[in-house]
Amino acid sequence: MLRKKILVIEGPNTNLLGDRESSIYGKETFESVNRQIEEKAEQIGLGCEVYHSNVEGNIISKIQKAKEQFDAIIINAGSYSYYSYAIRDALAAAKVPAVEVHPSNIYAQEEFRRKSVLADICLGQICGFGKQGYFLALDALNHIL
Amino acid sequence: MLRKKILVIEGPNTNLLGDRESSIYGKETFESVNRQIEEKAEQIGLGCEVYHSNVEGNIISKIQKAKEQFDAIIINAGSYSYYSYAIRDALAAAKVPAVEVHPSNIYAQEEFRRKSVLADICLGQICGFGKQGYFLALDALNHIL
Amino acid sequence: MLRKKILVIEGPNTNLLGDRESSIYGKETFESVNRQIEEKAEQIGLGCEVYHSNVEGNIISKIQKAKEQFDAIIINAGSYSYYSYAIRDALAAAKVPAVEVHPSNIYAQEEFRRKSVLADICLGQICGFGKQGYFLALDALNHIL
Amino acid sequence: MLRKKILVIEGPNTNLLGDRESSIYGKETFESVNRQIEEKAEQIGLGCEVYHSNVEGNIISKIQKAKEQFDAIIINAGSYSYYSYAIRDALAAAKVPAVEVHPSNIYAQEEFRRKSVLADICLGQICGFGKQGYFLALDALNHIL
Amino acid sequence: MLRKKILVIEGPNTNLLGDRESSIYGKETFESVNRQIEEKAEQIGLGCEVYHSNVEGNIISKIQKAKEQFDAIIINAGSYSYYSYAIRDALAAAKVPAVEVHPSNIYAQEEFRRKSVLADICLGQICGFGKQGYFLALDALNHIL
Amino acid sequence: MLRKKILVIEGPNTNLLGDRESSIYGKETFESVNRQIEEKAEQIGLGCEVYHSNVEGNIISKIQKAKEQFDAIIINAGSYSYYSYAIRDALAAAKVPAVEVHPSNIYAQEEFRRKSVLADICLGQICGFGKQGYFLALDALNHIL
Amino acid sequence: MLRKKILVIEGPNTNLLGDRESSIYGKETFESVNRQIEEKAEQIGLGCEVYHSNVEGNIISKIQKAKEQFDAIIINAGSYSYYSYAIRDALAAAKVPAVEVHPSNIYAQEEFRRKSVLADICLGQICGFGKQGYFLALDALNHIL
Amino acid sequence: MLRKKILVIEGPNTNLLGDRESSIYGKETFESVNRQIEEKAEQIGLGCEVYHSNVEGNIISKIQKAKEQFDAIIINAGSYSYYSYAIRDALAAAKVPAVEVHPSNIYAQEEFRRKSVLADICLGQICGFGKQGYFLALDALNHIL
Amino acid sequence: MLRKKILVIEGPNTNLLGDRESSIYGKETFESVNRQIEEKAEQIGLGCEVYHSNVEGNIISKIQKAKEQFDAIIINAGSYSYYSYAIRDALAAAKVPAVEVHPSNIYAQEEFRRKSVLADICLGQICGFGKQGYFLALDALNHIL
Amino acid sequence: MLRKKILVIEGPNTNLLGDRESSIYGKETFESVNRQIEEKAEQIGLGCEVYHSNVEGNIISKIQKAKEQFDAIIINAGSYSYYSYAIRDALAAAKVPAVEVHPSNIYAQEEFRRKSVLADICLGQICGFGKQGYFLALDALNHIL
Amino acid sequence: MLRKKILVIEGPNTNLLGDRESSIYGKETFESVNRQIEEKAEQIGLGCEVYHSNVEGNIISKIQKAKEQFDAIIINAGSYSYYSYAIRDALAAAKVPAVEVHPSNIYAQEEFRRKSVLADICLGQICGFGKQGYFLALDALNHIL
Amino acid sequence: MLRKKILVIEGPNTNLLGDRESSIYGKETFESVNRQIEEKAEQIGLGCEVYHSNVEGNIISKIQKAKEQFDAIIINAGSYSYYSYAIRDALAAAKVPAVEVHPSNIYAQEEFRRKSVLADICLGQICGFGKQGYFLALDALNHIL
Repeated sequence: MLRKKILVIEGPNTNLLGDRESSIYGKETFESVNRQIEEKAEQIGLGCEVYHSNVEGNIISKIQKAKEQFDAIIINAGSYSYYSYAIRDALAAAKVPAVEVHPSNIYAQEEFRRKSVLADICLGQICGFGKQGYFLALDALNHIL
Repeated sequence: MLRKKILVIEGPNTNLLGDRESSIYGKETFESVNRQIEEKAEQIGLGCEVYHSNVEGNIISKIQKAKEQFDAIIINAGSYSYYSYAIRDALAAAKVPAVEVHPSNIYAQEEFRRKSVLADICLGQICGFGKQGYFLALDALNHIL
Repeated sequence: MLRKKILVIEGPNTNLLGDRESSIYGKETFESVNRQIEEKAEQIGLGCEVYHSNVEGNIISKIQKAKEQFDAIIINAGSYSYYSYAIRDALAAAKVPAVEVHPSNIYAQEEFRRKSVLADICLGQICGFGKQGYFLALDALNHIL
Repeated sequence: MLRKKILVIEGPNTNLLGDRESSIYGKETFESVNRQIEEKAEQIGLGCEVYHSNVEGNIISKIQKAKEQFDAIIINAGSYSYYSYAIRDALAAAKVPAVEVHPSNIYAQEEFRRKSVLADICLGQICGFGKQGYFLALDALNHIL
Repeated sequence: MLRKKILVIEGPNTNLLGDRESSIYGKETFESVNRQIEEKAEQIGLGCEVYHSNVEGNIISKIQKAKEQFDAIIINAGSYSYYSYAIRDALAAAKVPAVEVHPSNIYAQEEFRRKSVLADICLGQICGFGKQGYFLALDALNHIL
Repeated sequence: MLRKKILVIEGPNTNLLGDRESSIYGKETFESVNRQIEEKAEQIGLGCEVYHSNVEGNIISKIQKAKEQFDAIIINAGSYSYYSYAIRDALAAAKVPAVEVHPSNIYAQEEFRRKSVLADICLGQICGFGKQGYFLALDALNHIL
Repeated sequence: MLRKKILVIEGPNTNLLGDRESSIYGKETFESVNRQIEEKAEQIGLGCEVYHSNVEGNIISKIQKAKEQFDAIIINAGSYSYYSYAIRDALAAAKVPAVEVHPSNIYAQEEFRRKSVLADICLGQICGFGKQGYFLALDALNHIL
Repeated sequence: MLRKKILVIEGPNTNLLGDRESSIYGKETFESVNRQIEEKAEQIGLGCEVYHSNVEGNIISKIQKAKEQFDAIIINAGSYSYYSYAIRDALAAAKVPAVEVHPSNIYAQEEFRRKSVLADICLGQICGFGKQGYFLALDALNHIL
Repeated sequence: MLRKKILVIEGPNTNLLGDRESSIYGKETFESVNRQIEEKAEQIGLGCEVYHSNVEGNIISKIQKAKEQFDAIIINAGSYSYYSYAIRDALAAAKVPAVEVHPSNIYAQEEFRRKSVLADICLGQICGFGKQGYFLALDALNHIL
Repeated sequence: MLRKKILVIEGPNTNLLGDRESSIYGKETFESVNRQIEEKAEQIGLGCEVYHSNVEGNIISKIQKAKEQFDAIIINAGSYSYYSYAIRDALAAAKVPAVEVHPSNIYAQEEFRRKSVLADICLGQICGFGKQGYFLALDALNHIL
Repeated sequence: MLRKKILVIEGPNTNLLGDRESSIYGKETFESVNRQIEEKAEQIGLGCEVYHSNVEGNIISKIQKAKEQFDAIIINAGSYSYYSYAIRDALAAAKVPAVEVHPSNIYAQEEFRRKSVLADICLGQICGFGKQGYFLALDALNHIL
Repeated sequence: MLRKKILVIEGPNTNLLGDRESSIYGKETFESVNRQIEEKAEQIGLGCEVYHSNVEGNIISKIQKAKEQFDAIIINAGSYSYYSYAIRDALAAAKVPAVEVHPSNIYAQEEFRRKSVLADICLGQICGFGKQGYFLALDALNHIL
């Protein structure tokens, strides 16, 4: 049996761990967290590619190609989560299960962060657990796939 | 070292597994799922009590007593999640970390389900993963406690 | 053939006939009206139980058990009609036809009474006819069952 | 004692039984239902005239003349119910009791159907019981007149 | 010089003086008030035709023909004032000055009466002075024409 | 019989005829228009005092004293019309009939001008007829007093 | 094979070409444009009837009869497009494909014109192309039928 | 003369003095504050019963029985204040004067706390003074009764 | 020890006791109530100055000077309470504790009175107890100072 | 005379014909539809370039250069239509006529699709006719240019 | 050539530098900042008068006289900026260019401060730079005049 | 001492000076204005880099790198100002002071331009002064740094 492959998408500003979310990540670097995501995937028998871009259109193009290469998507679209109906369309068309992850609790922040336009077309949402959110999402998808 | 104890609260109508959420739980009974939650907790070294009530005030009273007996709360408040500021107050006063779980994806349902008044005072939220949501929450709390 | 059975649910404050709705009920007592509902049911060949509670959760528990014992529900949820998504969930899960009755015309009162969150999951609604509303609902259900 | 007379008003598109509300009326024709309304009235000792028009202004003119000829009005104003403040004015000026009937459950349909501008000036409302709604309204008025 | 001619339009339910606005008109009849409007016009040297219809489309047709026959329009569109964008279009296309009259003070009534969709395309508005409103509008137009 | 006396209140910026509303008043000065108002009153047998202030509180104080000295009030409160609930309170307490006048058509201007907070406690409103609005208001009050 | 027949409905004020939309139609008359619509239909092998009425109810009655006589409807309901849920009901019940045409770009006008209540039950919408909009709609329907 | 009796109702979470509102109450216990309320009542010659429940329906039942046993109600309904139209109904039906007390200033907190659905049917409201609010309310009622 | 001094501010129209709030004050005059406020202060050992103005800016100037002369402010800003962010700013800058008093229950009146823009920067609010509200506020401040 | 040239812009996800809009396009590929657009243009004597990008900024850059190379724009901006004020600015600055095309009927879909921020600065809009929408837009522009 | 003259208007509470905006102004006094504004004007060759009032109507009167004496206005209307349509009218009628200055960043404060009703009739707005905002406004006007 | 360096960011469509904002810039080119910004910076002793991109993600990437290379940011994000929460996040994370500049007065334009989502996390905002806005922003930052 072939190993299932997961695409992990990191949207705008997710690469600023130390600067922006030090209360969540401490001194860890973006690269280090991404490596841990890959290791966690490895550990539970999943393939995994982490993709980061600040450009909305590039994220869309990446998702469009996911259908042929991946079995599921984990997405933290950063602030695009709050208005990018275009990423939403891409995810809906991708027809692979997607899980939305937010390291911080978006419901405990500014009003505009309390509604993700991606939430209703995803399988589920995990927020508020820092980097562990990605690991939980991998566990969840591992169970479902 | 003492074993950490988790209080799992199940709100109104969560006891109607077969009737109401058969697409999520199949033919499993409420009792069977609760037993699995307890086994999962046991397995990762946590104590766990599952409490169910349809009465808003009883849930509040239970949460009020949690501080002395439990280290964390996992709560699926059912439809009280959408308007019970009273349960919210009780959770906020409890001062033990709480995780909100919704077996179904509340963001993919009726408009009124898309805003939980409990969300911003919880540590995090997990929704859309059926009974596995409880297991993930236990994992998450195990890591944090 | 077995006689069909109807559960009539009376929510908070519905028991205050004389005090609260004297313009509608005159001097009749709550008990007297309930007896008339039972007699009307009897008269058209239906079984009937009238249940009253001020406690939201108890109403939910009663509805949960209705599926096995009753063929239909007539509900006047009082002011819970305007915000109790939990009673709504219970009714939706009950899977027996329900009819919403309001003795007074809720559309001719305060703004907050003009939208029942139960209305769209019921079979129909009768309001503005005082105690006669219950009799009309029994007639309607008798015709449908 | 003189026989009480009821004016039954049928608004726009109510004449399209088979096409539009076949799930409610089956194969019955508009004429057949109207005849049954008249028979039901006859049966309980009421006079009754059924009036249908697609033209808002004609409905208004009919209501204006009702005061001298009828003791009560039963009205299904079709979609005029959602915006015709002019029909509302006519009903309010008519000063005979009116009952609003909707054969389908308007609260279980599109958002714009969930608020009737006629509701608060009528005696009451009956919706969701198909043609039986007219019969129940006749019973209710018979009791009141 | 030719005498200027005014078209006075009376919308739905304006013909119900005694029944509906007795606090404003006392026992006067619709015909009597209309005759007084014509006399007032005569008295200040204006021609005048009073037109009444309950039918929105007929009012529109009348306004469409006004341009060739009248120098100005006085309109009390009754409750069509609150939603008839079609009458508004007709008035805007008529390209003769129009004055909106409401015998009662529409700002002291139900919320829905507090915004006329005709107001901004009329020259001005007079409300709250009973039948005298029409006389004041004639004076105002006499001064302007 | 004593001559009736009218208080005409001119609010903020009404004194800027030439600068602000030249399309309505042409080259007339504020003083000239006020004199014409007084002459018109004189002509129809009414006493009249024109009072102008830019200060909200002074307008309130003037209205408070009106009850003992005047039989009616004509008020153009300028932009205070859109938010001064304090002037509204003063007018309501004055217990003499008041007429609201706006020389320009407030409904054909910015959104914030389309709702006067004074309108519902006045007898009526006249807008869009320039200085003639004051004369019409005097005629109207003359008829009523 | 029988020639397909199209019903073209023109709502209130559409007959005022020269007066109202001279920037779109220049000096063309309503009759001339309607003749061109018929010629265009003829030319591409379609039958066609143009129907105009200012009366909402008459438009409804015409649509009700369309099912038996026509294969599709092209409708420019004028300002009824913004509030006539009754025309919407008639179109939905007609069960022949309908195309909404607006000669002017309704999205570049007043706020109230930016939402047609007919749009979601039509096949499609064409706006902003003057009389050519009707020709394009005929082409579109010709292709689909 | 009989001593007047006051019912003091404490809603959900009001029993959590030390945990939840230590900035307001310091180290005082719920029991201690309740005793002080009783002493204060005693001191000014009033009878007094303090009732606490977390269950909405029980509070309703208690209020329903108040009419026969008490002369006035002081109520701190906790978070039920923001949505319990059912408690509102019970208070309105009780027909004894009620005073709303909130120890903290609800207008300086979360948005949802800034509107009490009980406020307009109470005699008055006192908020922001900690336990002293209850004493002030007793003084106020003593003066009124 | 120095006697604490309280500034009592009375806003627009508060001076109209007999005319405007006779149901609350009976035949008492403004001056008499103010004297009673001063006596009450005297009685509990507080200094007190009552200041009244209808002019928003004068109230602001008075508050600005309060810091040096007074230990607390009691304010009934009349209708300025509903929109004067400028008075709010002055109160916030004054840095002495303030208590908002409304003799009538503002929550039981027109919609616009249900939100005071001063409420959240005050220590607390007392409304609905007539002149006694001022006495209660003095008691409350006496306790706090 | 030079041949007129049209720029056809295809926004995000429009390239996913088979996956996303199979009910509209069947098995046709994106490339095949684009070729047909070019052929249709050729056929009616127009030059035509089809440009696709998922990147908002690239679409803007393309539009900025259109003024020198094209006589008109046909744009299907995909989901950018619902929030890209930046594309709107580019179109407005381009000063060549633009036509908005949506293959599907955006008014019959999710709420957020029912308002295009591009609509009011375009010449017109065509939606609901699948690929034929592009052909109709070419016809319309051919007629106008 | 005559020296250009600037009127600097300071609204309510702007005189409370030390108390209210110490984080912005440090220990500087109102008088000292005003002198610096005058010196800055002097330095770049402009005349300048600083006017302060807490009274809305006085600010209006000052602006009304500005046209004859000043070439431009710099205004910090304090909290009147958020609701004084009367000051807005005065500014619009003044017909000299106006610049709005807010020493603090009004967009980073309470919701009600985020919309100035003066902004759209001013030339421009400068906010967030403390006293330097006035100097920048002088520079900007110096360049424009 | 090292020279402070400023990053000037120009968002989408800002490069279209002549076409889009000729009323503001006259015939100046984008390049010419940028050179003037650099010269102004030079003149007051600041280093300065002007960066332009139409691509939201590229602007984000540029801001992310600013922290190490620049002491402050001046940003005119064009229409991204109205919806790009992603640029907002990048600015907030950059932790260098930012000033928002809009050459035109955004408050005097379409409704959607009246709220910048960047405003509250910037130090201040300057709008309405054309290219001079950039010079003023440089002066302001020069003073602060």
